Amino acid sequence: MIYLDNAASTKPFKEVQEIMCYVMENVYANPSALHKQGFLAENLLKESSMFFAKQLGCSKEEIIYTSGGTESNNLAILGAINAYKRNGNKIITSNIEHSSVKEVFTYLEQQGFEVIRLKADLDGYVSLEELENHLDGKTIFVSIMHINNEIGTIQPIEKIAELIKRKNKDTIFHVDAVQSFGKILVPKKNIDLISISGHKLYGPKGVGILYKNKNIRIVNLFYGGGQQKNIRSGTENVYNIVGMHKAGEIVFDNLNKYKEHYQKCKNYLQKNIENHISGIRVNSAVDGAPHILNISFKDIRSEILMNVLEKNDIYVSAGSACLTHKKSKNILSFIGVSEDYVYSAIRFSFSYETTIEDLDKVVNVLIKEIPKIRKVNNGGK
Amino acid sequence: MIYLDNAASTKPFKEVQEIMCYVMENVYANPSALHKQGFLAENLLKESSMFFAKQLGCSKEEIIYTSGGTESNNLAILGAINAYKRNGNKIITSNIEHSSVKEVFTYLEQQGFEVIRLKADLDGYVSLEELENHLDGKTIFVSIMHINNEIGTIQPIEKIAELIKRKNKDTIFHVDAVQSFGKILVPKKNIDLISISGHKLYGPKGVGILYKNKNIRIVNLFYGGGQQKNIRSGTENVYNIVGMHKAGEIVFDNLNKYKEHYQKCKNYLQKNIENHISGIRVNSAVDGAPHILNISFKDIRSEILMNVLEKNDIYVSAGSACLTHKKSKNILSFIGVSEDYVYSAIRFSFSYETTIEDLDKVVNVLIKEIPKIRKVNNGGK
Repeated sequence: MIYLDNAASTKPFKEVQEIMCYVMENVYANPSALHKQGFLAENLLKESSMFFAKQLGCSKEEIIYTSGGTESNNLAILGAINAYKRNGNKIITSNIEHSSVKEVFTYLEQQGFEVIRLKADLDGYVSLEELENHLDGKTIFVSIMHINNEIGTIQPIEKIAELIKRKNKDTIFHVDAVQSFGKILVPKKNIDLISISGHKLYGPKGVGILYKNKNIRIVNLFYGGGQQKNIRSGTENVYNIVGMHKAGEIVFDNLNKYKEHYQKCKNYLQKNIENHISGIRVNSAVDGAPHILNISFKDIRSEILMNVLEKNDIYVSAGSACLTHKKSKNILSFIGVSEDYVYSAIRFSFSYETTIEDLDKVVNVLIKEIPKIRKVNNGGK
Repeated sequence: MIYLDNAASTKPFKEVQEIMCYVMENVYANPSALHKQGFLAENLLKESSMFFAKQLGCSKEEIIYTSGGTESNNLAILGAINAYKRNGNKIITSNIEHSSVKEVFTYLEQQGFEVIRLKADLDGYVSLEELENHLDGKTIFVSIMHINNEIGTIQPIEKIAELIKRKNKDTIFHVDAVQSFGKILVPKKNIDLISISGHKLYGPKGVGILYKNKNIRIVNLFYGGGQQKNIRSGTENVYNIVGMHKAGEIVFDNLNKYKEHYQKCKNYLQKNIENHISGIRVNSAVDGAPHILNISFKDIRSEILMNVLEKNDIYVSAGSACLTHKKSKNILSFIGVSEDYVYSAIRFSFSYETTIEDLDKVVNVLIKEIPKIRKVNNGGK
């Protein structure tokens, strides 16, 4: 099987499985229990927090564990806006966010907030000028993703963060770093909230992190036992947190190696598709994420090509898995790509295990099948 | 080690670890992905839903996966009350609920709801008469737990459910079954929402279920990809769900055997403590949960005895682990137990692995240590 849908979910490292089983067997007490077994579980959480704090350059008290990227984004946005809504009514995001950010803003708009959605350009970049024009004393919150999950655009979040704080130091800035954490370095300066997911990082599903700057407040989504300083009640997901920690260790030990490997895969696949197949559009920006390559194949609906690839045991996606349930449009329709290319987009996303042989096989299948599909689509002409 | 804190968290079965690793290795795609690998993951979720639906006697569409008992309780209570708040302002619970129910009601009270808290009696039972007196046309919601987590009282939830629907068929009834599901049979008739947790069931932490009657609506807590019919956005926690499913299979295959085993442990420990130690109070009702035995040892603060037991590699708790963070009072203070016994309560909770030899060792330690502690406490007299 050639699995090129790593932006949707990655295969956990063997070491992740092993440590999760070890902890299930040996450290299964409730981390809130007031005995040694509970303390052992609590210590595992502390060690994990110290690791992630080190990666982000923050303190371990600024690491909050959640059930994943969706909860991190919801907790960040709803939590901060609820905490600071008395300071203003204006909130800013972009038109290319993941649904777990986009839908929260839609909800907040229905609640009466003034929502500004920055329009990304053809490469998926938001305009700093447009952002600057909108930022004012009433702007309480901005959320802009780091790496776009569909085409891989890397927003200049350091510059964005600096701009936001220069215009209004009280505006809270949230970054959805689900696709970037563990792929490229995630800056932290001037950023108040950062969302991270375990299963995009070769860790388990059902676990994530919200980095929260200790100087800001957020309102909890759950009420209960008061775990995690009352920000996130509920028995901590110890096994998955430890699994995510192990995944993070391996990923950060190999950050540059993996990054170069993804980039090599991306360049190789792009070059070979460009050399051998006509009527394509590369939707990913030149300096986009190393692990995501989005290409449209004119006259071929994404589903058709996905199916053909699947028959060859190759797995890709048409965009975000999280768009499936709402039959939402993909990002290309928002950034102004012409209709011909919007419905023919394929996202290839790489892992550290992807090989050049895998990509050769993919290209060979494309070379063989694409003319056939196009011929059928054009009525056999 | 003798681990008698199974009401706080259980050790996952070996089979749970094995299947989780198998799925991490083989079915790691995103269940929302529109290719075969995604469908395989989605099918695992369906199989798990069918299993849990069968246990509860509902349809698989009525099973919602969450991050655990706390989220299930929050989603049930906030979700249903938000959906039906136009029908009335009165909501009912008891004064012996878990913090993840109790704190939600405190929040709702702050939001202007009229909250009735039924007062449990000395054995931890709520009064059906008191409940009946409060139920009226404006009562939109009732939440009463099945097995109390601290002393193990089993509420007659079938009778309570029948009473609620007889007085007002539109009143929604939620049951926190975190301590009962997998221990005793959980009835479903006339109950609209049931909360379940994986890690109380020899499954993984960080995963739970909310049963939601298909005829009622609840408002989602998270906004996003629209997974689980938009009730719970976020990539499903596939590995943990499959692990919880495996745990459920083993537990339900052995339900009576385990139940008898817990009961045997409980009776044995209680009898031996009663026979050998003076100045005790058995706080658990005679016909309480088979796996929970709560006993107070007069003149000895819980922490002191926990410590002494810990030195002998015996792990128990003073009550709910979820009370740790808020330094909340234990349930005994709410049901009218005298002060002497409130601060000296110890909860012993059993697993299928607990042996009579373990309990003999516990009793021997108690026989040896309790007189010493009491002597010190009484100034060496």
